[in-house]
Amino acid sequence: MADQIQPMAPEGAKARVLVAGATGYAGALAAELVWRHPRLELAAVTGRSETGRKLHELYPRYSVPLEIKELEESDLDDVEVGIVAYPHGAAAPVVAQMRGRGLLVVDLSADFRFDHLPSYEKAYGPHSDPDLLDGAVYGLPELNRREIAGAELVANPGCYPTASILGLAPLAEAELIDDVVIDAKSGVSGAGRGGGEGTAFVTITENVNAYKPSGHRHRPEIMEKLELDRLTFVPHLVPVDQGELVSCYVTPRREITQDELDRIFADAYDDEPFVRLRDMPPGMRDVRESNQCHIFALVADDRILVESAIDNLWKGASSQAIQNLNLMLGLDEAEGLR
Amino acid sequence: MADQIQPMAPEGAKARVLVAGATGYAGALAAELVWRHPRLELAAVTGRSETGRKLHELYPRYSVPLEIKELEESDLDDVEVGIVAYPHGAAAPVVAQMRGRGLLVVDLSADFRFDHLPSYEKAYGPHSDPDLLDGAVYGLPELNRREIAGAELVANPGCYPTASILGLAPLAEAELIDDVVIDAKSGVSGAGRGGGEGTAFVTITENVNAYKPSGHRHRPEIMEKLELDRLTFVPHLVPVDQGELVSCYVTPRREITQDELDRIFADAYDDEPFVRLRDMPPGMRDVRESNQCHIFALVADDRILVESAIDNLWKGASSQAIQNLNLMLGLDEAEGLR
Amino acid sequence: MADQIQPMAPEGAKARVLVAGATGYAGALAAELVWRHPRLELAAVTGRSETGRKLHELYPRYSVPLEIKELEESDLDDVEVGIVAYPHGAAAPVVAQMRGRGLLVVDLSADFRFDHLPSYEKAYGPHSDPDLLDGAVYGLPELNRREIAGAELVANPGCYPTASILGLAPLAEAELIDDVVIDAKSGVSGAGRGGGEGTAFVTITENVNAYKPSGHRHRPEIMEKLELDRLTFVPHLVPVDQGELVSCYVTPRREITQDELDRIFADAYDDEPFVRLRDMPPGMRDVRESNQCHIFALVADDRILVESAIDNLWKGASSQAIQNLNLMLGLDEAEGLR
Amino acid sequence: MADQIQPMAPEGAKARVLVAGATGYAGALAAELVWRHPRLELAAVTGRSETGRKLHELYPRYSVPLEIKELEESDLDDVEVGIVAYPHGAAAPVVAQMRGRGLLVVDLSADFRFDHLPSYEKAYGPHSDPDLLDGAVYGLPELNRREIAGAELVANPGCYPTASILGLAPLAEAELIDDVVIDAKSGVSGAGRGGGEGTAFVTITENVNAYKPSGHRHRPEIMEKLELDRLTFVPHLVPVDQGELVSCYVTPRREITQDELDRIFADAYDDEPFVRLRDMPPGMRDVRESNQCHIFALVADDRILVESAIDNLWKGASSQAIQNLNLMLGLDEAEGLR
Repeated sequence: MADQIQPMAPEGAKARVLVAGATGYAGALAAELVWRHPRLELAAVTGRSETGRKLHELYPRYSVPLEIKELEESDLDDVEVGIVAYPHGAAAPVVAQMRGRGLLVVDLSADFRFDHLPSYEKAYGPHSDPDLLDGAVYGLPELNRREIAGAELVANPGCYPTASILGLAPLAEAELIDDVVIDAKSGVSGAGRGGGEGTAFVTITENVNAYKPSGHRHRPEIMEKLELDRLTFVPHLVPVDQGELVSCYVTPRREITQDELDRIFADAYDDEPFVRLRDMPPGMRDVRESNQCHIFALVADDRILVESAIDNLWKGASSQAIQNLNLMLGLDEAEGLR
Repeated sequence: MADQIQPMAPEGAKARVLVAGATGYAGALAAELVWRHPRLELAAVTGRSETGRKLHELYPRYSVPLEIKELEESDLDDVEVGIVAYPHGAAAPVVAQMRGRGLLVVDLSADFRFDHLPSYEKAYGPHSDPDLLDGAVYGLPELNRREIAGAELVANPGCYPTASILGLAPLAEAELIDDVVIDAKSGVSGAGRGGGEGTAFVTITENVNAYKPSGHRHRPEIMEKLELDRLTFVPHLVPVDQGELVSCYVTPRREITQDELDRIFADAYDDEPFVRLRDMPPGMRDVRESNQCHIFALVADDRILVESAIDNLWKGASSQAIQNLNLMLGLDEAEGLR
Repeated sequence: MADQIQPMAPEGAKARVLVAGATGYAGALAAELVWRHPRLELAAVTGRSETGRKLHELYPRYSVPLEIKELEESDLDDVEVGIVAYPHGAAAPVVAQMRGRGLLVVDLSADFRFDHLPSYEKAYGPHSDPDLLDGAVYGLPELNRREIAGAELVANPGCYPTASILGLAPLAEAELIDDVVIDAKSGVSGAGRGGGEGTAFVTITENVNAYKPSGHRHRPEIMEKLELDRLTFVPHLVPVDQGELVSCYVTPRREITQDELDRIFADAYDDEPFVRLRDMPPGMRDVRESNQCHIFALVADDRILVESAIDNLWKGASSQAIQNLNLMLGLDEAEGLR
Repeated sequence: MADQIQPMAPEGAKARVLVAGATGYAGALAAELVWRHPRLELAAVTGRSETGRKLHELYPRYSVPLEIKELEESDLDDVEVGIVAYPHGAAAPVVAQMRGRGLLVVDLSADFRFDHLPSYEKAYGPHSDPDLLDGAVYGLPELNRREIAGAELVANPGCYPTASILGLAPLAEAELIDDVVIDAKSGVSGAGRGGGEGTAFVTITENVNAYKPSGHRHRPEIMEKLELDRLTFVPHLVPVDQGELVSCYVTPRREITQDELDRIFADAYDDEPFVRLRDMPPGMRDVRESNQCHIFALVADDRILVESAIDNLWKGASSQAIQNLNLMLGLDEAEGLR
């Protein structure tokens, strides 16, 4: 999977980027990553609330001193790239507007992740701009780097799909998967900002529980991308701010040795800058605030166990958006992400 | 499962209890629960370290003002009950000594949990007192209350087996289980006191990871008690001090409706004082510092999902020991546990 | 301070208690403590939201199966005691209504804590029922047990005042305090349920910060009760669900030795069932989910340091309400609190 | 304080750096920061334990693939800089060895922080290399940037002194301080790696407590650097992995208005790249994993309150070491720290 794309953007030029929806966790982090990026320039940050406040006041950890403003048509003048961090449904019209102005777009919502409109509509409801689905590329660089490099609209994957697909893709490609159970664990930031009592400290600390034990919207996304027939997917909330671990229990189509398993994963990922194969089960802390995905695979008790860890806000959202953008702009894929 | 045992101990008398191994988390809690119990008297607390310190100084949350002492033969004079909270291997000789003196014993270690010596020895190594295995009763009251009531040596179950067996027993009894994956999550106290860097705050906070992904010793215990043929069991460490959640993914032998599933669990547990059936997935917090087990069961994606939560130190160890002791002494099963 | 009140209620009778405002953290815990109390009967739980839900569904840790209902006049028939857990301002009219019906009342709000109306109004605004202030007794049993025993309306102290006054009262009584700095640390439940983004897990975890660095409403309460002239009080939020620690830095009026300091505190608290003097600084965990206050006092660097720890929801609110109620009803002060 | 030093190192050249003591938290982070630094080259990482393991295996979050080795004389060949992260006492001989070979040294221990030998020996015991004290420069760039730029041995400040001195220096310089109470709160990593039960997750979570309530070794360091006569300093442990907040309660020599206070701090820090003045009390999260110090100052209740937050491992140790090293090498002070 790791045929590297050569950087080809002219040295020194900076692409101007607007981040729409910069008040949420993912949008704010995307803005910060653009701000620190040596080859990008943060043109504006927009939001539907908190307008007039500077982003580094809303998020004191961050250094972006720009004021959050409402998105207006004129903000798109003189901007080459839009990163959209709106909820699904709300994202599509903004993406359409940006594409109409010729911007390259990375969309963090679910609106352009599905290949097939019915799959989207079944999970999320009606789509306002289905025409754009065709040209959208699924932004998981380890799988389809080349398509992303040529894309004008990239749909950033969901956080669970990122961890799950990276963990399972080598097995899917080797046609080894008969059936999978994914027991997923996510930090609380996955629920977004301002979540109310369900994400209150007092609710979350010293607690772990399953939620949406059936019908989570990331399940069809994983099934479509891996072409799976059977998948049980149950997400759990853990007392962690950011981090995600998926434990994948694969019933293999045939027996497999640990050696063969190791070889399959090494072939897939040894050259990947953002995937590290581990010989011990990875923890969420190991990938915290990085674009890394750490993967552990084991033949155990007639099954294959894959543990795959990412930071849900970074590789599961904002830093992966930057990785995609680097590819789209012909930059070094890891620029600004080390 | 819930045929209640009638209390038959004489009103007012207090049984004298010695807790051996009271310096560890489970032993200390057992001592505290005995101390607060209206029908038990805490005769002594012993330990292999910290001797000379009072238990409530070592654990300031607790109120036991007794000094920790080394266990001597004479401590067993005038005592009717021993609770043993030693590591496996170290427990058996102490249990044998107590049984030799005629004490009723609840042992929190693994030493007397298995019906069959070879199963024990495969998981834990040689056994010093295999003769005692035969008379030992597995102390899960919801399953074999009647045997416990007549027992002189009760082997308190492991924490993962407690949650797992309670979650799966109704399905096993209904011969519904073809295959199970258990993704288990445990708070850190499960690793015991003084764990070193692996249980340091800095290692655990904002982290989740699998450990012993194959070959955990609680797996054969679960398999033996439920008579399972196939079980994948992977434990995970979560940033919680005490609490345990097992997510059980059952491949059923036949199709089953949610209604039938609900009926099976209601039949099994509606009269149980310490099991609550939930219509939402339970969290660890819900059972924190209680003898409760909360269970949620759902037909989902061709599988049966069972989420079962306990406090690993309470129902998974010390309060279940008291529940067992109540039964052995003919007391109200819930005495001292409300 | 510890002249014990003799229990005088008739054996066996149970007082019927209504808890108003049982949906918040403190009200729900008060209801649970009444429910478990051997000499109290929980007649009803009322709330201004969540009506129709059972309390043990809203708080699965708790066992109260009563439905939350809106408070109606008829609910006060056949009830002897009201516990009011409403916000300040909203509490006073409910208290007045209950007093009009002859109920004994413990009010957890600030509405009846101040001796002087102007002090209240300066901190909280206009008072709807100032006539009731005169008869209200400040409910800190370690200080004024005898008045509480005869009271019909007890104003439960604030959480910070409880920890602070218990820590400083012996020094105040000995006229040793010239000036105090209180650096207070509180768990998040102190902010109440449904707090929004300020109490979200992602905001709180791995964080500590001061809030309301000047003008906190508990400052005048502490000053009035201890008759202090000078007090700097700065509260901090820590990533703890329930627990409170106040660090009091006293500039003494005269030199004092550690021996004298120890004697002063021993005289004050050696006989108190719910205060423990410690020879090491106490932690919040040591008093978690108990009615205990742990205190450490040290002569250090020309100052006296007092560290005083409570559980803000228990001794700082709900269990102290039960302690007060026990006194008002002539029960053993510790009934239901061990 | 903010007269900027102009970078003067030749473009492109990389200084070779050895990190001694890279197995501890601070040493490992220093190694990682050197590894990522565009103008430094990590020559070797040494340790007294864990030799033979790669640093990124010991700390999977980090990317340094070098093997930890025992420090040998030959490791110092061809190296220009040593960063020493040994405990006090053990550091001095290693520093002496490096200085003997002409290396520039940043020492993270206490061994060279004091101007006066007796102050050191009173707090830490005998010093093995007192001759080196004279040439050592205290490495707090915001205070003595110019001396650091010319130094060959820089003593990195303690974590509490960094936060405290930055918070108080403007007031000390203005001769406003009569007396100070510092209530300090630290994350657990401040206690170092492998701390045993005192730093276990189960001990720390949901807990806050004072420790070493008198005689902490950072107290004399703060007093010496700020030339204070009176200081009460009490550190507290909070359930945070990395982060530090000091709450300074200053009794001023004279009355002061908020305006004047604001002006004093603005004059001191407005041009500082790593200090941010805040109009709300800062939290530990705001500076997490950054070289930032956030400061809030308020005239309140006849005192001046200063809240100062840093990351104890970054600005309180390793990233400040890099900041110092940048100055010593004539690089941009912020190189590798943005």
